[in-house]
Amino acid sequence: MKYPNSNKNYVKPRESASNRGMSLEEDINTTNRYYLTSDIAVVYKKPTPITIVHVDYPKRSAAKITEAYFKVASTTDYNGIFMGRYIDFEAKECESKTSFPFSSIHSHQIRHLTDVLRHGAIAFIIIRMVAYDKDFLIKANDFINFYNSTSRKSLPYDWIEKNGFVIEKTYKKPCDYLQVVERVFELWVRK
Amino acid sequence: MKYPNSNKNYVKPRESASNRGMSLEEDINTTNRYYLTSDIAVVYKKPTPITIVHVDYPKRSAAKITEAYFKVASTTDYNGIFMGRYIDFEAKECESKTSFPFSSIHSHQIRHLTDVLRHGAIAFIIIRMVAYDKDFLIKANDFINFYNSTSRKSLPYDWIEKNGFVIEKTYKKPCDYLQVVERVFELWVRK
Repeated sequence: MKYPNSNKNYVKPRESASNRGMSLEEDINTTNRYYLTSDIAVVYKKPTPITIVHVDYPKRSAAKITEAYFKVASTTDYNGIFMGRYIDFEAKECESKTSFPFSSIHSHQIRHLTDVLRHGAIAFIIIRMVAYDKDFLIKANDFINFYNSTSRKSLPYDWIEKNGFVIEKTYKKPCDYLQVVERVFELWVRK
Repeated sequence: MKYPNSNKNYVKPRESASNRGMSLEEDINTTNRYYLTSDIAVVYKKPTPITIVHVDYPKRSAAKITEAYFKVASTTDYNGIFMGRYIDFEAKECESKTSFPFSSIHSHQIRHLTDVLRHGAIAFIIIRMVAYDKDFLIKANDFINFYNSTSRKSLPYDWIEKNGFVIEKTYKKPCDYLQVVERVFELWVRK
């Protein structure tokens, strides 16, 4: 998805947050393609949800959407299957050095993570701390417990360092989260 | 999603096929909402994949997509978690009385079903035979085996009747496919 950024007349909308997130998203997509072609797992990013208002149907060419709006997602962005298990996660970049704002994750998404956890999913959040060039995997359970028990508006970085698991990057797997998942969720035990 | 249909100048595009499917889609969405609120399962339809070409960012109002096109889906439309298991399916309406054309399911989707099956998913196809007002669940495995072993271009209705499982409709669950899933995939045995 390309957003115009050269025209100074554009007002930067909230959606530009997903612009900043592009590179984590691309790293995860690359990694997911590797997992798929290596037969490790089947995980996809869901398409961006939009509300279509108007579609033109020109003769002899493809239908063109001429009016549509971004919609708030009811679920997380990623899900799939790994080692026979349903996995579900959200991924966000974080510019702050000191904390991850809870406002980065919609309440719908927290409810969704709570729902899938109750049904036996492997659920987590990936946070890229841009300033430290580090990706962390945080179990959804830990995230939700902290979220529900605090009056804070963000997850402090020291909490992330203590409770999160660093995700390794390689050329083929720029965000190799499943290596962490396998270890942290002890999948070999449950098989 | 609303498509204009009153203007006679519009050429009906291929995408209008998804218009015909609207009512099965709505029945599945209603059923999925029931499953969610009754804590039976968490299953969602994925958003329609589109390629965004241009977005306007008017001051003081929401970003507006002014040029976008429909994209072929790389996966099936529905996935989620039921009884701790990953489930994945595609749903299609069929107007023909005699057979279900294979062209209704993209080759990407057949490949995707093959992928998730190999990883241990519960995978299937729901076909609504409009003429008979009947919904059938067909195991992805059975569908793919037949698809790979025939030179036919469609699934004959007698094959569907013999190999498919009729899905019941109730007011709250207008397409109660999980009742069939639980029985047909013998989920209580594997728990």
